[in-house]
Amino acid sequence: MADQYTNLDNMRFLLYDVHDAEELTQYERFQDYDRTSFDIMLDAVKDFSDKELFPYFEEMDANPVTYDDGKVTVHPQIKKFIDMATKNGFIGPWFDYDQGGIQLPQMMYGAVFHILDAANNNVAGYVGLTSGAANLIRTFGSKELFDTYVPKMLEGKWMGTMALTEPQAGSSLSDITTTATPQEDGTYKIKGQKIFISGGDHQFGENFVHLTLARIDGAPAGTKGISLFVVPKHRPQEDGSLTYNDVFTAGDFQKVGQKGYATTHLVYGEDDNCVGYLVGEPHKGLKYMFQMMNEARLAVGSSGIAIATAAYHASLQYAKERPQGRKIESSGKKNVEAGQTFIINHPNVRRMLLLQKAITEGGLSLLVECGKLVDKHMVVEDGKEKDDLHLLIELLTPIAKTYPSEMGKTSISTGLQVLGGYGFCMDFPLQQYYRDIRIMSIYEGTTGIQSMDLLGRKVTMKNGAALQLLMKEIQSTIQDAMTHDELKPYAEILTRKMGTTQKVLGHLMGFAMKGDFERFLMDANMFMEFASTIVIAWQWLKQAIVAKTALITGNTPYGEDFYESKVHTMKFFFKYEVPKTLALEQILMDNEVLTIQNEKEVIV
Amino acid sequence: MADQYTNLDNMRFLLYDVHDAEELTQYERFQDYDRTSFDIMLDAVKDFSDKELFPYFEEMDANPVTYDDGKVTVHPQIKKFIDMATKNGFIGPWFDYDQGGIQLPQMMYGAVFHILDAANNNVAGYVGLTSGAANLIRTFGSKELFDTYVPKMLEGKWMGTMALTEPQAGSSLSDITTTATPQEDGTYKIKGQKIFISGGDHQFGENFVHLTLARIDGAPAGTKGISLFVVPKHRPQEDGSLTYNDVFTAGDFQKVGQKGYATTHLVYGEDDNCVGYLVGEPHKGLKYMFQMMNEARLAVGSSGIAIATAAYHASLQYAKERPQGRKIESSGKKNVEAGQTFIINHPNVRRMLLLQKAITEGGLSLLVECGKLVDKHMVVEDGKEKDDLHLLIELLTPIAKTYPSEMGKTSISTGLQVLGGYGFCMDFPLQQYYRDIRIMSIYEGTTGIQSMDLLGRKVTMKNGAALQLLMKEIQSTIQDAMTHDELKPYAEILTRKMGTTQKVLGHLMGFAMKGDFERFLMDANMFMEFASTIVIAWQWLKQAIVAKTALITGNTPYGEDFYESKVHTMKFFFKYEVPKTLALEQILMDNEVLTIQNEKEVIV
Repeated sequence: MADQYTNLDNMRFLLYDVHDAEELTQYERFQDYDRTSFDIMLDAVKDFSDKELFPYFEEMDANPVTYDDGKVTVHPQIKKFIDMATKNGFIGPWFDYDQGGIQLPQMMYGAVFHILDAANNNVAGYVGLTSGAANLIRTFGSKELFDTYVPKMLEGKWMGTMALTEPQAGSSLSDITTTATPQEDGTYKIKGQKIFISGGDHQFGENFVHLTLARIDGAPAGTKGISLFVVPKHRPQEDGSLTYNDVFTAGDFQKVGQKGYATTHLVYGEDDNCVGYLVGEPHKGLKYMFQMMNEARLAVGSSGIAIATAAYHASLQYAKERPQGRKIESSGKKNVEAGQTFIINHPNVRRMLLLQKAITEGGLSLLVECGKLVDKHMVVEDGKEKDDLHLLIELLTPIAKTYPSEMGKTSISTGLQVLGGYGFCMDFPLQQYYRDIRIMSIYEGTTGIQSMDLLGRKVTMKNGAALQLLMKEIQSTIQDAMTHDELKPYAEILTRKMGTTQKVLGHLMGFAMKGDFERFLMDANMFMEFASTIVIAWQWLKQAIVAKTALITGNTPYGEDFYESKVHTMKFFFKYEVPKTLALEQILMDNEVLTIQNEKEVIV
Repeated sequence: MADQYTNLDNMRFLLYDVHDAEELTQYERFQDYDRTSFDIMLDAVKDFSDKELFPYFEEMDANPVTYDDGKVTVHPQIKKFIDMATKNGFIGPWFDYDQGGIQLPQMMYGAVFHILDAANNNVAGYVGLTSGAANLIRTFGSKELFDTYVPKMLEGKWMGTMALTEPQAGSSLSDITTTATPQEDGTYKIKGQKIFISGGDHQFGENFVHLTLARIDGAPAGTKGISLFVVPKHRPQEDGSLTYNDVFTAGDFQKVGQKGYATTHLVYGEDDNCVGYLVGEPHKGLKYMFQMMNEARLAVGSSGIAIATAAYHASLQYAKERPQGRKIESSGKKNVEAGQTFIINHPNVRRMLLLQKAITEGGLSLLVECGKLVDKHMVVEDGKEKDDLHLLIELLTPIAKTYPSEMGKTSISTGLQVLGGYGFCMDFPLQQYYRDIRIMSIYEGTTGIQSMDLLGRKVTMKNGAALQLLMKEIQSTIQDAMTHDELKPYAEILTRKMGTTQKVLGHLMGFAMKGDFERFLMDANMFMEFASTIVIAWQWLKQAIVAKTALITGNTPYGEDFYESKVHTMKFFFKYEVPKTLALEQILMDNEVLTIQNEKEVIV
C-alpha cells in the first residue's frame, strides 16, 4: 500500500496561488472564512481521511456492498464518514446559514471532496448525492417539502439520491416511463423502475429521499413531459413517524469497481402504495434535474482526478523505491558492474510519471477554476458579470467532467504500467484505481453525451458567447505568460491553437448551418478531446506563470523543486500532449463520412 | 453473455485470401495439409471452444485459481482442454513427425490459439508454455534431455514453464541471482526464487518442467553469465518413478484479470536438494531463452487481439440489439414520436464499433502475416531469403506484441463504453475483458522494453536491413493499391508516411551516432506507436485490396457486406488512426529533453 494519496501543497498552490480562493472571502457571503480557516479544514479532512478512509480502501473492494432480500449492507466505516460529514456541515455546505448550511465556497467543497475521494472513492457519493438532492428541494421545492426533508438530510439521518435512469431508456431520458398519477390530495401515485441509483439504500439511512423523474398521466412525449418528484422510501407522518412508501430495493448492481458504493435497482409502487410529491411545476423536471446534474458532473470530474491522483502517488512512490536495471551509458551498453538505479531514473518511467502528473494536476486546476466560477456566480450581483460566469460554467462543465474521466483512465493505466507485473496484482492498489475510475466516463452522461453537449449546445449557445469568453480568459493567460522568456514559446503555441479552434469550428458550423446536424455532431468526441487538451494546456500555462514568478521572487513556500516541477510539467504537457491536437484537427477537418448510417451495412 | 467471440469468416479471409496460407502446402514439410484439412481443424476447435471453453469464461473469473499450502488448484475444465490439445497434437504442433509433432504451420497454430483465447483466455497458456518449453529442450538440449522430458510434455502429462523473473530483478535479467552449483555427476544444484511463473503448478500436471535461468558459480556478471536449466518439480528416476526435486510452490499471485490462469511463486532448493540439468552450453541461457521469448511475444500479441476480438463481438451484439434514443433529424431535434433506434445507428457508437473492428482485425492480420513469415523461414533453404525472413520476423515481433496489447486495451475500453452503465457491471463480459487484457502490455517484456527493442535493436540491426525489407513489402502493397481508384488516396497517404518514417529515424539516429543512446531511446515508446500505426495501416490496405478485388470480380463467399466492410474499415483506420502519426512525428522531431534525469528533481 502506498503511503500517500494526494498532495496538500499542490492543493494549496492551486487554491491560493493560482486561483486566488482568498478573493472570495471579500464577499459578504464568505466573510467568515479566511485562509487560516480554510487550511484548518483541509488539514482536518486530510487527518480524518488518513485515519478513517484510506486504510479501508482495499477492504471495501474486497468486501463489496451486499444485497439480500431488499436489504443493502455497506461497510461500517460509511457510518463514520456520514457522521463526520454531518458534524462538519459537509452535507449541503453551500446552503445559507439560516437553511442549515455553512456557506462554504464551492472551491473548498471541491478541495474537501478531492481529499476524501483520493483517500477512498467509495464513500463521498453517499453524502454528495444527499447534498445535491437537498439542494434540488431547496431550490425548486415548496417550503413544506423543505421543512419536511432537508433538515433531516443535513443531519445525515435521511439520505438523498437522484433517480433518472430506467432499464429501457438508458441515456435517453425522453423515453422514461415511470408514471405519476394525480391524487385528490395533491400528491401523486408513482409506478415504475429506476436502475443504477447510487447510494439508493443502505443500513445507515433512516430514510431515502429519491428525487425521481416521472411522467404525470397525459404528459407530452419526450423530455417536455417529465416532472420531478420527491419520493421517499418511507413517508413521514404528521406525528413524525415513518410509514413504508412502497419503494422496494430490488437489487444492488455488482460492479467491477467502486464496489463499496451501493448502486441500486428501485421498484416503485408494486403494491400501488407509492406516493410522490411534485417539486416545482409539472413538466419542468428535467430542467430542475439539470441543476443537480451539473453539480454531479463536476463532482464526477473531481472523483476522476482524485482517483488518478491517488494512483499517481502510488506509482511515484513505487518508482522512487524500486531499484531495477541501470542507466544506459554513452557506450549504449549497460554497465552491469554498476549498482542498480531506481526506476524513476529510466526515461520511459519518468515519462509515464510526468504524464500522470500532467493529467492529474492539470485536471485538478481546471476543477478548482470551475469551483471559483460557481462561487463568484453565486455572489456577484445580477448583470453581465453573472451571466458571463454562468456561460463559462456551462461551457467548461462537460470538459471538467470528461477530461478527468477519460484522461484519468489513461493516467491510471500508465501508473499501473510503472509497477510492471506488480501493477496487475491485487496486493498493489493500482489495479483497483484502474477499475474504479472506469465508471467516471459513464456516470452522469457518457463521454458521447458530454461531447454532444459541448459541441451541439455549449459552443453554439448565444451565438458562441461562452466560447468568446473562454477565449478571452485564455488570451489573458497568454499575455501574462509572454512576459516570461521561458514561457513565451508555450504561450505562442497556445495562441496558434486558438486559431486552429476557430478554423475547426468554422468548418463544423458549416454543417449545422446547412441543417445537417448529424454530420455536425458526428465527431463530437474528437472535438471534446481537442478542446479539452487546449483547456488543460491553458491551465498548465496558468500554473507555470505562478510557479515561474515564485522562483524569480524567491517566494517558494513549498520548496524550489515544487515550482521547478510545475514549469517542467507544463513543458511536458506542451511537448507530449498538445501535439494530439494536430491529429484531431486533421480528423475534424476531414470531409469523409464513415460513421453515419447509410444503405450499406458496413459493420460485420 | 454474448453469443459470439470471434468470426471464422474473417479468420479464413485473412488466412487464405490475404496471406495465402495454401502456398505453404506446396512445401514438403506441410504437404499433408490442404485448405480442407485446415478448415476442418478450425471448425473442430471452434466447436470445442463453443462447448467447453466459452461457457466457463465467467466462472473461471468468479472462482479464481486457489493456493493452499503448496498446492495450486485450477478450474476442472483445464483438464478437458489439456486432453483436447494433447489428442489433437496441439502441444508442440510444429515439431517434426518423428519428434512427436504434427508439422503444423505457425499460421494455423496461431489461428487455433486465436479461437481458444477469444473463447476463454485463461486456458491456452497452460499448453502454449508447455509447447515452448518442449521446443527449447528440442532445439538446444541433449538427446537425453529430449527423451526424458519432451514425450511426456507432448502427451500433456508433464507441463512446461519459462522461469525468468526474480523479485529483485524484474525486467532486468542481468540482475538475476538464482545460482547453479556444479555437481560431480554433471548436474547442478539450483537455489533461488522465481516469481510470476505462469502455469507453474496445478493439480493436472504430474510434473512441471521449469526452463529456468540461473548463474553457474563464478559466472560473469550481467546477461553473459546466465545459463539455462531444466529444473523439474519432480526428478525422473531411472525406473520411471518421480522423486520430489525441492521446487516449492510458495504462492499464487492474485491478479485483477486472467484469474483462471495460475501465476506462481517458486522457491528452488530450500532443502538444498534441487537438481537442474544444463541445456546447451553454459552462459548462453539468455540467447536460448530468447527463442522462446519471441514465440511467447507473438503469443501474447495473439492473446491480446483474441480478447479484444471477443470484446468487439460482445459490444457489437449489444449495439445491434439495444434500442435507445433516436436519430438526429435535419431539424437538429429528435423526433420523440418516432420509435427508438438501435444504438448501432448513432454515429458515435458506430465510430466506437469501427474503432474496435479496425484495431482487432488489423492486429489479427499482422499476426497472421508474422505466422506466415515464421513458416516460410522454417521451410525455405538457407540463404538470403531465409535471412531476410528472419530479419522481418525480428523487426515485426515487438510490434506484433505491443500493438495488440496497447491498442487492444483501448479497443476493449471502447467496447465497454458502448454498453454504458452495463459495461461496468459484472453481468456483462466487457469488464472482464477490460481486466484480462491489461496484463498483455506487461507479459514477456513491457511496452517500454519492446519499444527499446524495436528502436534500439531491430531498426538498427545490420544497418537497417530489416527496415528496408519491410519498406519494400509495404511498397509492394502500395503499388497493388494504386491500381484501384478507390484505394489510391490511401496508398498515397501510406507513401507519405514512409517518407516521414525515414525523416524521423534520420533525426533519432543522429543521437545514436553521437553516442547519446539515452537520448536516442528517450521516446522509444512514441516511435513504437508511430511505427505500429503505419504497419497496421499497411495491413488494412492489404485487406482492402483483396476485398476490393473480390467485390469487382463478384467472388464474395462471405457475402458482399463482409467485403464492403473491409474497405470501409480501412478508410476508417486511415481517417481516425493514421493522423496520430502527425502528433507522434512532432514529438519525435522535438529537441526538448524532459524525461532524462538531470540535477533538478522535477517530479514531486
